[in-house]
Amino acid sequence: MFEARLNQADIWKKVVEAIKDLVQEATLDCTENGISLQAMDNAHVSLVSLLLRNDGFETYRCDRNLSLGLNITSTSKILKCAGATDAVTLKSGDKADTLTFVFESRNQEKVSEFEIKLMDLDVDHLGIPDTDYKCVIKMPSAELQRICRDLSQIGDSVVISVAKDGVNFSSTGDLGTGNIKLMQSANANKPEETVSIEMNEAVSMTYSLHYFNIFTKATPLSSQVVLSLTENVPAVVEFNIEDLGYIRYYLAPKINDDAD
Amino acid sequence: MFEARLNQADIWKKVVEAIKDLVQEATLDCTENGISLQAMDNAHVSLVSLLLRNDGFETYRCDRNLSLGLNITSTSKILKCAGATDAVTLKSGDKADTLTFVFESRNQEKVSEFEIKLMDLDVDHLGIPDTDYKCVIKMPSAELQRICRDLSQIGDSVVISVAKDGVNFSSTGDLGTGNIKLMQSANANKPEETVSIEMNEAVSMTYSLHYFNIFTKATPLSSQVVLSLTENVPAVVEFNIEDLGYIRYYLAPKINDDAD
Amino acid sequence: MFEARLNQADIWKKVVEAIKDLVQEATLDCTENGISLQAMDNAHVSLVSLLLRNDGFETYRCDRNLSLGLNITSTSKILKCAGATDAVTLKSGDKADTLTFVFESRNQEKVSEFEIKLMDLDVDHLGIPDTDYKCVIKMPSAELQRICRDLSQIGDSVVISVAKDGVNFSSTGDLGTGNIKLMQSANANKPEETVSIEMNEAVSMTYSLHYFNIFTKATPLSSQVVLSLTENVPAVVEFNIEDLGYIRYYLAPKINDDAD
Repeated sequence: MFEARLNQADIWKKVVEAIKDLVQEATLDCTENGISLQAMDNAHVSLVSLLLRNDGFETYRCDRNLSLGLNITSTSKILKCAGATDAVTLKSGDKADTLTFVFESRNQEKVSEFEIKLMDLDVDHLGIPDTDYKCVIKMPSAELQRICRDLSQIGDSVVISVAKDGVNFSSTGDLGTGNIKLMQSANANKPEETVSIEMNEAVSMTYSLHYFNIFTKATPLSSQVVLSLTENVPAVVEFNIEDLGYIRYYLAPKINDDAD
Repeated sequence: MFEARLNQADIWKKVVEAIKDLVQEATLDCTENGISLQAMDNAHVSLVSLLLRNDGFETYRCDRNLSLGLNITSTSKILKCAGATDAVTLKSGDKADTLTFVFESRNQEKVSEFEIKLMDLDVDHLGIPDTDYKCVIKMPSAELQRICRDLSQIGDSVVISVAKDGVNFSSTGDLGTGNIKLMQSANANKPEETVSIEMNEAVSMTYSLHYFNIFTKATPLSSQVVLSLTENVPAVVEFNIEDLGYIRYYLAPKINDDAD
Repeated sequence: MFEARLNQADIWKKVVEAIKDLVQEATLDCTENGISLQAMDNAHVSLVSLLLRNDGFETYRCDRNLSLGLNITSTSKILKCAGATDAVTLKSGDKADTLTFVFESRNQEKVSEFEIKLMDLDVDHLGIPDTDYKCVIKMPSAELQRICRDLSQIGDSVVISVAKDGVNFSSTGDLGTGNIKLMQSANANKPEETVSIEMNEAVSMTYSLHYFNIFTKATPLSSQVVLSLTENVPAVVEFNIEDLGYIRYYLAPKINDDAD
């Protein structure tokens, strides 16, 4: 038996919104330690990895490991039926072919049960090698979202160049060029606005803006995002999910003569 | 001569919005007692019935009975030209082929007159038999709207099942099933949030969500909605229009083997 | 060298939004006195004329006259990348083939540079004759926008008729007629709501609503708009841009038998 209760439907809603433009089907892996999900996008260019730890749930029970194959579009439809402040319980039997979402309103006067059919999905867990990234940038997630959206007006790719004092995002296209520089900064009163840079070596790599725009759908989950970069190694874009875990996206740089 | 003045353009706006997705043409029947409208949707599956009583208007005069054939889409366009707090006067001569809408702003500095051409429409008044409904449910109109919209994610039909302690709305489709239970409840401080159930006999019938979604366009007219249900008899969905009358929708249940 | 700095990106954003539905390409003429732009729409029916005086800028320098041919759609995309409260600097060399926009956030922690390619455009400056207009109407710009939008529900043209006590806007179409009367009024507490009429001679002319709807895209620039009308002479629709200059639209009346 598997049962996991969260008091904030909102978190599940945001998690699924952060995934659904990247993958249409994925497997929730449930163990006694928590829930995880790992999936590549259809084009096999990027990877999303989600972890929600058991101790972040109001109640959590998982008697034996389960792999729940979900249609993410359907899951998103069902989560749209939850109120933002509803409590959400996920339930499934040990050999069930359905997953049940129970939404309970705060005043207990409305209880909804949605049962979604599970799918048999091939699961291919990729080992993600531990990497010592050359640059680690923490910055406001809304700022990264804004920068990626803005540069999409100019071109298809973004060159991210990191120096000690700041990060540079630039793009080129038919209409001209755009170049956005973000300075390292710390605002003790507003830690969520901090831009911090840890750099062992300067990095300048080119990435697809299409994927960055999808990754920043996770912005509502966290006020800060962490970018970990090393030349010729996939970038990691990480959003922390408070008290629960994280969602991480991996994206290989573009190999492009004029990119570096 | 016919002349009817209301201080709130908003009410006419909402009334027409509540009708226009169901019927494209309809007749306003004006008598000394007030204004009424009755029309079936194009597919002849549902019926809408509107009553606005003379004493709810600021001024009301109707010298002889008039049947004003209106294009509802055009009427909606004209009402979009009124400010929400404008006063609205409807005017027509006894044998006129136009209906005039006069909109006056609160400060009297803007006066608009729109004259709409009338249509000759076949009028077929249906006698609606008085029925003693087995179940009468009062509930927040926004809640009914939300439930119908949510279940539309799952399927095309809703099964409404009434028991003493609550009402159940359920739907089934390719992705799975959804079931929403609303408990009877009374909140003396917020009467508009009350869910009350009068039940002589349990009822469980299936209805088209498409039509329920159209009916709930009337939600802005009233904080509460009344559902009257009896097996194998059209359901009534009623929105009270404060001080003026009501808008009622009638919809036959679906006859479907797995519905009950 | 040309360099012009404004502390409010918002103004440039609004100026370009006010132009971009009318013209796709236009020339910014920069002189030591300021920046101006004059362009006809594609159909050569209307003309837009912009003036931003040098003394309205935070800093302004223009060593020699420049004509900067801009793709307005691209310029609009670039200005979308500025925050509303960013400072904006336009920069160009004397013989440069690009124009640079520099956006600086208030806290100086984000600096963006966008370089747009310039175009070679044929420039045809029209002399606009000085006219003593028979009627000059000042009114709230949002009211003009609302009236034009509302009458577009009815017809394609608006007849503007001016009398001493008020202005009449009317339209006719398949569904009927609409007529909106605005009274002269002055509200000392809310000067932006004033409707004032200076009239030497009554005027009644017909204009295309399509163009008026485009002109009123300039509404965010100014709370008041000035309409200057004379029979059989292009109307002028003017929005003042505080401390900087103005944007003016010229539109010839429709010559139409039933218009007057």
